[in-house]
Amino acid sequence: MKSIVLLRHGESTWNKENHFTGWTDVDLTDKGVEEAIKAGNLLKEKGYVFDKAYTSYLKRAVKTLNVVLDRMDLDWIPVEKNWRLNEKHYGNLQGLNKAETAEKYGEEQVMIWRRSYEVAPLPLDVNDPRNPRLNIRYKNVPDQELPRTESLKDTVDRILPYWKETIFPNLQTAGQLLVAAHGNSLRGIIKYLKNISNEEIVHLNLPTAVPYVFEFDDNLQLVNDYFLGDPKEIKKLMDAVANQGKKQE
Amino acid sequence: MKSIVLLRHGESTWNKENHFTGWTDVDLTDKGVEEAIKAGNLLKEKGYVFDKAYTSYLKRAVKTLNVVLDRMDLDWIPVEKNWRLNEKHYGNLQGLNKAETAEKYGEEQVMIWRRSYEVAPLPLDVNDPRNPRLNIRYKNVPDQELPRTESLKDTVDRILPYWKETIFPNLQTAGQLLVAAHGNSLRGIIKYLKNISNEEIVHLNLPTAVPYVFEFDDNLQLVNDYFLGDPKEIKKLMDAVANQGKKQE
Repeated sequence: MKSIVLLRHGESTWNKENHFTGWTDVDLTDKGVEEAIKAGNLLKEKGYVFDKAYTSYLKRAVKTLNVVLDRMDLDWIPVEKNWRLNEKHYGNLQGLNKAETAEKYGEEQVMIWRRSYEVAPLPLDVNDPRNPRLNIRYKNVPDQELPRTESLKDTVDRILPYWKETIFPNLQTAGQLLVAAHGNSLRGIIKYLKNISNEEIVHLNLPTAVPYVFEFDDNLQLVNDYFLGDPKEIKKLMDAVANQGKKQE
Repeated sequence: MKSIVLLRHGESTWNKENHFTGWTDVDLTDKGVEEAIKAGNLLKEKGYVFDKAYTSYLKRAVKTLNVVLDRMDLDWIPVEKNWRLNEKHYGNLQGLNKAETAEKYGEEQVMIWRRSYEVAPLPLDVNDPRNPRLNIRYKNVPDQELPRTESLKDTVDRILPYWKETIFPNLQTAGQLLVAAHGNSLRGIIKYLKNISNEEIVHLNLPTAVPYVFEFDDNLQLVNDYFLGDPKEIKKLMDAVANQGKKQE
């Protein structure tokens, strides 16, 4: 049996402070590091030995991955970083907190931005210092592909080419792959793998740093998927994410 | 001006306990992590922005690199890991400490193993659990290339193809590259770049986690090389390595 494990990064400083984060490159909190350590210990205990790992250009995912690989004694495996695994771009909401945003645009509008599949927040100005075009790490990404805002649909559309052309084909030769990324980029992969509707996918709340295992047969057909860990604890974590709303953004 | 920065990993647990380490995959000490943090802060302060980084398959180098990149806010850059950047393989001395080794083989023999360019320690048995062939991370390395012991000459001979064919050609398009590796694999690169004799190279004692900068002109000719940091402090660190002897192995 081959498998791909999806892992959402541990708690970040802006999760904690309840800001819209998106492509803002915030760090893990101490709790986030602890979550990553726990995930790494669990994966090692279950006997996983990844052939390769993938992550985004954002340090909360990269550092979660580094900690996990170190706990698994797999510091040496190849890691590929790609901007397409980044979190959903939150446009001009990035940096605002929930209260500020509701005050500025009204509760209803905020709920649309946070919960609709196709509506994106207002884009960043071309000259806004937060525009990814002005960030050296995206210098090799073609202009027309680099977002200044995204709906969840946009996020799904830019993650899937990387999934289909790069990550998934590697499973032909690899036995186990690891993808450390973000709530919404992982939603895109899960939506595709499990054929989840646009309406349903916005209600999938991934807990942070809980390994989500997808198993494939030798013909690379998906045969099983499950979270690793204590089901009761995972249910509690997913409910907490759903109730806090902002946590997955 | 283009540049390549060579960085020896921070203090490891076996540096501290005075064991021959070689390919044994020991961790950094807390001091080693602190050294890496300091190196990262210094490189950031000096304005370095690396396009790509290279490291070995050994966690003391990988983790030094991870810490440095994080301090520089460069967690996102591509990192390539290769076994050819590993430390010199110390054969059947790996795991022994200086006192044990001198007792077993005599002081004179130990000095030859540690200070000659061409003499290698006795090789590991094929069935020795320390034989790299039995370690999953080297499964893709051809049998005839995987050592069970190495002289410094052997180490130089296996590092240079990777330097010449992979790292150095990248400088044609990149501006700044970082190589985080080990005392003896870096000796190999420095010997080649500065055309140092077999006799002299064994006396080059690289301090741990002090960035060693090599600058190249647009024709990729070496024009300058220097350590980053306070010259007095660096001199002290190099003398300490030379006097302790074992520290670079």
